[in-house]
Amino acid sequence: MSALVEFAMFPTDKGESVSAYVSRIMKAFDEKGVEYQLTPMGTIFECDTVEEATKLIDLAYSVLEPDCNRVYTTIKMDIRKGRSGRMKQKIESIQRRLSES
Amino acid sequence: MSALVEFAMFPTDKGESVSAYVSRIMKAFDEKGVEYQLTPMGTIFECDTVEEATKLIDLAYSVLEPDCNRVYTTIKMDIRKGRSGRMKQKIESIQRRLSES
Amino acid sequence: MSALVEFAMFPTDKGESVSAYVSRIMKAFDEKGVEYQLTPMGTIFECDTVEEATKLIDLAYSVLEPDCNRVYTTIKMDIRKGRSGRMKQKIESIQRRLSES
Amino acid sequence: MSALVEFAMFPTDKGESVSAYVSRIMKAFDEKGVEYQLTPMGTIFECDTVEEATKLIDLAYSVLEPDCNRVYTTIKMDIRKGRSGRMKQKIESIQRRLSES
Repeated sequence: MSALVEFAMFPTDKGESVSAYVSRIMKAFDEKGVEYQLTPMGTIFECDTVEEATKLIDLAYSVLEPDCNRVYTTIKMDIRKGRSGRMKQKIESIQRRLSES
Repeated sequence: MSALVEFAMFPTDKGESVSAYVSRIMKAFDEKGVEYQLTPMGTIFECDTVEEATKLIDLAYSVLEPDCNRVYTTIKMDIRKGRSGRMKQKIESIQRRLSES
Repeated sequence: MSALVEFAMFPTDKGESVSAYVSRIMKAFDEKGVEYQLTPMGTIFECDTVEEATKLIDLAYSVLEPDCNRVYTTIKMDIRKGRSGRMKQKIESIQRRLSES
Repeated sequence: MSALVEFAMFPTDKGESVSAYVSRIMKAFDEKGVEYQLTPMGTIFECDTVEEATKLIDLAYSVLEPDCNRVYTTIKMDIRKGRSGRMKQKIESIQRRLSES
């Protein structure tokens, strides 16, 4: 099973620039050995179960919690049984179709 | 602490109409005694922690998992320390300002 | 055709409380005669076309733009041909199934 | 001004695999000369105004509309005045902080 997740999480009580806070989450993921893709609008990772995926969301919040009074997060998941390695596969599938058309 | 959550979750391998699947999630929430607000675009609930909130996301997926091969979900959370009862408060706060203006 | 929209839009450079800004958007919708449902996590409205829907997003931003340096928005749309009046219908469809089960 | 957009759009009445439909949107963007980044969970692009951004959402729907009865889309925008070139900048800003920590 593959739970592909894209999420953004940031404090809304820290003014206009929040990269210092977002980078904490990336650091926590690095320390835990989570493979992720950083995009200009969020972070993408893949888990074998939904439970694992939501635990990483919990982790992300835990590193902002100590000094952030208000935090906003948007999360989307595309969950598909019988698959894995979809961080590459999904893009390749689109690109193959594009090159064929 | 208040983790206010809005989410939508539905199978994408079951054709155009998915209300039968969505209602399973509501049934699971009812059985667990979770208070929620159903909207035309999703479900809103409030938890005391982010962990509780993500566990309800896990629960929602667990009732679709048995017969859904592909499931999509979008989740947003507005997490604020030192608050509770925000399902009503947030709307009232906007409406007060509207009536004042 | 029915484009059902749920969106949240708020400045991220104005500190923790943003209801004064969000209520501006509601005021603009009221003045334009847009019917909407306010929820604790966003605003829901229905249009006959996607173009109409995205123009209301443009309108929402236009009332924040003058004094907000950074604005975040999340939007989801459920677009379905041959339908209308879905702000009520979708909820009723879920509730009917819940009462049957 | 920079309107950074991440969106996913797909039919929900076409079964489990939707890459053929998603690639149509990419083709339309290619034909229009829109620069975008394809991720496993969506498409990211940057515009100078919110109106331009929402017009590209309209375009995306227009290529699905002919044969898709139901379409779902999630969109998020991070709009910031006085900036441009943020598809690279935002990631670099996070990475700089990560390497410093």
